[in-house]
Amino acid sequence: MTQPLRLHPDRLFPADIRTRDIARALHAGVKDLPIVSPHGHTDPAWFARDEAFSDPASLLIVPDHYVFRMLYSQGVPLDALGVPTVDGSPTESDPRKIWRIFADNYHLFRGTPSRMWLDWVFAEAFGIDVRLEPATADLYFDTIDAALKTPAFRPRALFDRFGIELIATTESPLDPLEHHAAIRASGWQGRVVTAYRPDPVVDPDTPGFAANVRRFGETANEDVGSYAGYLAAHRFHRARFRAAGATSTDHGHPSSATADLTPAEAESLYARVMADPTAAEAELFRAQMLTEMAAMSVEDGMVMQLHPAVSRSHNAQVLARFGRDKGGDIPLPGEFVRALKPLLDRFGNDPRLTLILFTLDEDTYSRELAPLAGHYPALRLGPPWWFHDSPEGMRRFRERATETAGFYNTVGFNDDTRAFLSIPARHDVARRMDCGFLAQLVVEHRLEEDEAHEVARALAYDLVKQAYRL
Amino acid sequence: MTQPLRLHPDRLFPADIRTRDIARALHAGVKDLPIVSPHGHTDPAWFARDEAFSDPASLLIVPDHYVFRMLYSQGVPLDALGVPTVDGSPTESDPRKIWRIFADNYHLFRGTPSRMWLDWVFAEAFGIDVRLEPATADLYFDTIDAALKTPAFRPRALFDRFGIELIATTESPLDPLEHHAAIRASGWQGRVVTAYRPDPVVDPDTPGFAANVRRFGETANEDVGSYAGYLAAHRFHRARFRAAGATSTDHGHPSSATADLTPAEAESLYARVMADPTAAEAELFRAQMLTEMAAMSVEDGMVMQLHPAVSRSHNAQVLARFGRDKGGDIPLPGEFVRALKPLLDRFGNDPRLTLILFTLDEDTYSRELAPLAGHYPALRLGPPWWFHDSPEGMRRFRERATETAGFYNTVGFNDDTRAFLSIPARHDVARRMDCGFLAQLVVEHRLEEDEAHEVARALAYDLVKQAYRL
Amino acid sequence: MTQPLRLHPDRLFPADIRTRDIARALHAGVKDLPIVSPHGHTDPAWFARDEAFSDPASLLIVPDHYVFRMLYSQGVPLDALGVPTVDGSPTESDPRKIWRIFADNYHLFRGTPSRMWLDWVFAEAFGIDVRLEPATADLYFDTIDAALKTPAFRPRALFDRFGIELIATTESPLDPLEHHAAIRASGWQGRVVTAYRPDPVVDPDTPGFAANVRRFGETANEDVGSYAGYLAAHRFHRARFRAAGATSTDHGHPSSATADLTPAEAESLYARVMADPTAAEAELFRAQMLTEMAAMSVEDGMVMQLHPAVSRSHNAQVLARFGRDKGGDIPLPGEFVRALKPLLDRFGNDPRLTLILFTLDEDTYSRELAPLAGHYPALRLGPPWWFHDSPEGMRRFRERATETAGFYNTVGFNDDTRAFLSIPARHDVARRMDCGFLAQLVVEHRLEEDEAHEVARALAYDLVKQAYRL
Repeated sequence: MTQPLRLHPDRLFPADIRTRDIARALHAGVKDLPIVSPHGHTDPAWFARDEAFSDPASLLIVPDHYVFRMLYSQGVPLDALGVPTVDGSPTESDPRKIWRIFADNYHLFRGTPSRMWLDWVFAEAFGIDVRLEPATADLYFDTIDAALKTPAFRPRALFDRFGIELIATTESPLDPLEHHAAIRASGWQGRVVTAYRPDPVVDPDTPGFAANVRRFGETANEDVGSYAGYLAAHRFHRARFRAAGATSTDHGHPSSATADLTPAEAESLYARVMADPTAAEAELFRAQMLTEMAAMSVEDGMVMQLHPAVSRSHNAQVLARFGRDKGGDIPLPGEFVRALKPLLDRFGNDPRLTLILFTLDEDTYSRELAPLAGHYPALRLGPPWWFHDSPEGMRRFRERATETAGFYNTVGFNDDTRAFLSIPARHDVARRMDCGFLAQLVVEHRLEEDEAHEVARALAYDLVKQAYRL
Repeated sequence: MTQPLRLHPDRLFPADIRTRDIARALHAGVKDLPIVSPHGHTDPAWFARDEAFSDPASLLIVPDHYVFRMLYSQGVPLDALGVPTVDGSPTESDPRKIWRIFADNYHLFRGTPSRMWLDWVFAEAFGIDVRLEPATADLYFDTIDAALKTPAFRPRALFDRFGIELIATTESPLDPLEHHAAIRASGWQGRVVTAYRPDPVVDPDTPGFAANVRRFGETANEDVGSYAGYLAAHRFHRARFRAAGATSTDHGHPSSATADLTPAEAESLYARVMADPTAAEAELFRAQMLTEMAAMSVEDGMVMQLHPAVSRSHNAQVLARFGRDKGGDIPLPGEFVRALKPLLDRFGNDPRLTLILFTLDEDTYSRELAPLAGHYPALRLGPPWWFHDSPEGMRRFRERATETAGFYNTVGFNDDTRAFLSIPARHDVARRMDCGFLAQLVVEHRLEEDEAHEVARALAYDLVKQAYRL
Repeated sequence: MTQPLRLHPDRLFPADIRTRDIARALHAGVKDLPIVSPHGHTDPAWFARDEAFSDPASLLIVPDHYVFRMLYSQGVPLDALGVPTVDGSPTESDPRKIWRIFADNYHLFRGTPSRMWLDWVFAEAFGIDVRLEPATADLYFDTIDAALKTPAFRPRALFDRFGIELIATTESPLDPLEHHAAIRASGWQGRVVTAYRPDPVVDPDTPGFAANVRRFGETANEDVGSYAGYLAAHRFHRARFRAAGATSTDHGHPSSATADLTPAEAESLYARVMADPTAAEAELFRAQMLTEMAAMSVEDGMVMQLHPAVSRSHNAQVLARFGRDKGGDIPLPGEFVRALKPLLDRFGNDPRLTLILFTLDEDTYSRELAPLAGHYPALRLGPPWWFHDSPEGMRRFRERATETAGFYNTVGFNDDTRAFLSIPARHDVARRMDCGFLAQLVVEHRLEEDEAHEVARALAYDLVKQAYRL
């Protein structure tokens, strides 16, 4: 009585048959293009060591906050899902038990993108042809577990099989980048590059900030006792990251605030944030640092990404027991118009800068982001992010941003994930949704079909390479 | 030359024919499920006394702010519609005259849910088969008036005919609940329960607040001179409401603010709000009381509902002449992430609490509410509310909330109405829109059809019973 | 190898074939109705002088910030597009060179309304049948240039050919309205009226505000040393504008704030803003003036329009070199509920006032604007504005506003443009989108087809004449 698992070839295409026919044709032209993943959170150690993933639960459930937060919201304890604790106290360690809980609750994911990504992984990556449900839990576990022990499921083999042209990981300046070095030294041809995410040495609210900055200075051989030395350390580490293939920086600030202080003001602020800053000083320092990073980007050509406005670790009890990134991050309202002005006043018209803006506040798509990106040469719009990296989220983004910003002020797709096996599924969703959107424009005679083919290719492949300077 | 009135069997289903076929099949599986109405504003006296409704205008126009606000917005005086005045000065008293004005202006409701609800009442409840327009005004009036005089249109007969399994009314702790007692004493089998809405003794901005609290204490035999006594009175009245079938509380606050004060702070704040509180003190007291109510819900199992952020009685002239609830309530921006943190820090992870969140700020669906409900075990999302209890409002809710919160963190439908005759129409709209949404997921291969049937039933019936613990 | 340029007769209609058939039928009933353009920015000198437009670039690119901001956002310097500078330093003066740059970059407009408007101008106004691309740049330039030299492309001939019944321009009280006088004196029958936009004498943040006010007083022969004299000058100029056909005023404030000060407070505030006002005083004065303008509208019957909440000239470098209105205006969040209360407390219930509200913050459609307009007799909702005057913007407006405000609290379409040749295209987009929206209601059995025909006509023609008292 199990149900079949089928990935329908028309999935995500509009229902109307003429529109669907056009979407199919557009998709046929882009579905086999290589995957360029310019921003994400895969672990470079996977590609450096190329070891087998350990088991289905540790690969697909325990590290994936999309998955365990939904189970948790319906009463499944994180302990029962094997999520590790801050203090090392034990949680469930039997991956099969974890998997069975997941299977028992798989219906909770109906209507979510997680369901689509997971089904793709089950069907395409592992070749499973029955649906996940309590009765098939062990079949799934055994099938996946066996596959993971084979060479075909090692990270590099999957990288090649998935048609990945390039993947960017994200590291802090405190990272020695030894895995990236090992990858390059290994002779393997897969392109795995890093990205410069300086939050731990830019955000004074990071636990251990001052110690981080001192270590950051030491590895750069710069005296971070002065602001000039601190900035010089950034230049050192940015160059080090560029040598490891980085073409971009990434900034995860609680707001989009930017500032443009005088050197004396900045020096004095730096001294205060290295001591015991107020909340306002911390915010102003982050704001100032975005503008400093833009100035360095103008020099060294690194593309900036801004991912603002999330209330991190909103759930105090979950934070205390399980730590950060456990599904309790909640978006905040976004504001870009006033916040970005100091930075844009200096660099908004400079074609050497590319600043890619992301948001979790979809209201800003049509109100703020599209008008800004439709005017300033330095700005581009990142794709729908995190909670909105989903069919409806993608549809809303195109519907709300395109008429003002056009297609060419957007930058293709980011999977932004640590769930390596789902990467092709995520790009597939984006390509299908974009083709469906374009097909609707064609069928409503808002765009000619030959143009839609060009745009589909741009959205799937060309724009990401241009925007990220790959 | 009158036009026919027809309720098309496919109404509200998507236009695409394959999608429509699936929607029809899904709807066939849920259309005859009983109506569970866990939150609304019908008058329990109707069911206690089971008297005939007086006339068409007094039943369908005079008490319905959806109806008379639209007429008023286009220049029809509320006096001419018979809306009663605060000072008792007379307004139009001839129901036929009121009805004719309504008929003359019925075109104003084109494209609104009121039009759909009213047409259902006319066609299904009263069997009328021509459209309401000036030429049919008297036909309508006479038909409805005659029907209302028959036993089939008494409240209990309609309750049974409508297939209502349970209806919850909403009362303040100052209410003796004598109608609910009368219903139970009558031997009639209809389930009419109350819900605990303590705003008049929780919101210091309520006119007569301190007197309300004293009366609240007296009926509980508690000394509300102390905060402990005040809380004990809540416990007494909550128990009294539970004895009258209540499984839920409801809170209509101007914001979602919550607080978690120390006992000493709360005691001192209570003393101030019983005297002459500032606006900030009133807000803080409401905030503290949400957390206190959550604490009591953890004890007694009552489900909390929060309906925040409305500017009540925005129109000063209408308020002065006609009083509250006269169509001049206007939504305010919502904010939940920071506002709910104090309450969630204490009870967000407690499976004994269910807190159902409503909003009139649709921006918060995808930005705040779905991420919160998709993580915290204690949170659920209420259905689209008030202005958004409409086809487009329901579509937006599902499109924006489902991908992050799933279906199972929502709680089915609330009609939330005092317009008793429209209750089946409102549930019908919700079931049709949900089936249409699910059909689209099926036709786009985002959900299998067997699953869609399960979800349709959950949305129409199962989830509301679970969430409200019925 | 050029591509054909075709305006498909079904453009913008929904894909579903039954829905499209209904949309076609609705559109057939409204497509030939006269154009009523109650708010826009065409230059009355065109109609007064009836001279030929000079060349394709000066007509279609150089003055159109929709066009050059998109090119600029992708790195085309405004200098290369011939945008004039503040200091008169030369920019590109060869219209053919400008046109070629435009043709080279025409793909940037894919998916934007500018593309639809321009294609209409090319195909319908100029009869061109190949697509604009680099290879056809000169063909386009030569064809348009030659046409502009013919009598058929003079402003009055186009006005007649376009089927324009009335067009309103927008002038400041400092304008002598001599072009409007010349039009009336000329014997030409085209109805070109003005509208009263007093921002330069109402907004203390306008450069030269005090001097403006003094000139405003002199031409009115009023002593603007007192607030009473200042208000009297408004009355004088409003009467002067009404004599030039004006039926409306227009207010472009940075927020929707209104105030209702006592005469003494207002007098004192006026004295301060004529000297050196703080930002708060300037804001309060603008707020007070909206209420004063409403009071005058109650007297003289002029309809008020409020276009709030834009960060004007956000790009400091573009402002310094090229001046205002150069594509760098960015929307701000809107707030109407608290902001409008002082004005509404006085005039919201007065049927003599019509206040038409516009917004660039689409979140306010369902949250604030539709509830306000669905209640207050004095309020109406303006159509989607500026960035949202587009197919998706119009769809969102109808989807979000109709269920609460209905159709009859909206006021038809505004083209709001200075791009004269695009006016028929813009009205055509609005009529098509409205017919498509109505067709969807019909096919979903939410509205009967005979009613949809009535509503389509109201949206295209009747409501604008009623609302603007034309």
